[in-house]
Amino acid sequence: MLIDAYGEEMKVMNYLDVQEEMAKMEGASGVTVRWLISKKDGAKNFFMRRFEIEGWTPYHTHPYEHEVFILSGEGTVVGEGVEHRLSPGVFCWIPADEPHQFKKTGKEKLCILCLIPHTDGR
Amino acid sequence: MLIDAYGEEMKVMNYLDVQEEMAKMEGASGVTVRWLISKKDGAKNFFMRRFEIEGWTPYHTHPYEHEVFILSGEGTVVGEGVEHRLSPGVFCWIPADEPHQFKKTGKEKLCILCLIPHTDGR
Repeated sequence: MLIDAYGEEMKVMNYLDVQEEMAKMEGASGVTVRWLISKKDGAKNFFMRRFEIEGWTPYHTHPYEHEVFILSGEGTVVGEGVEHRLSPGVFCWIPADEPHQFKKTGKEKLCILCLIPHTDGR
Repeated sequence: MLIDAYGEEMKVMNYLDVQEEMAKMEGASGVTVRWLISKKDGAKNFFMRRFEIEGWTPYHTHPYEHEVFILSGEGTVVGEGVEHRLSPGVFCWIPADEPHQFKKTGKEKLCILCLIPHTDGR
């Protein structure tokens, strides 16, 4: 990946080289996460995670927003009395304190980028 | 896209339904941008943009960071004495004030998500 380096600071990696973890959300089924850009990289304002969803995330809420981009797979995002279909190229803005749930509906895993502000604390 | 809605607030769209603009960066060649999530959506902390790069962005710097994910195409990101290859699945953390340039190197456009903190002012 690295062609040449002297005095570099930027970080450039393939997501596959980042440790995959089970997502620590109560009520999640078959959800893994890779923290791509977080505090340990020096990020202060917002963090980038990549999720693979074989089942669903819990229907839950928290006091910070999500900015999501669908990379692959098919699914839905459920909100308060609303459900939207998800496919590659779709993005979601989920305001703070808005209930939401992501579910896989196709054969392949639903793979998404999900970014959060630093207020999550990680 | 919308299956059912009452009282919804979340925004769910395909990026293709967002206006594509020429990127307003001096020295850019063949770069378009779609602002997917920004202030007008209510985002306060950080903003999501999707760029299509037929040529290159300028080698430039600014006082805010980038968090980038490569969606399609091949390219490189150039930093201070460093160059990294880019392909789908690669992500980049570019700290504030770090010089950088994105270039297409393959046949297809280099398509990336590039997120910035609200300090950019848009």
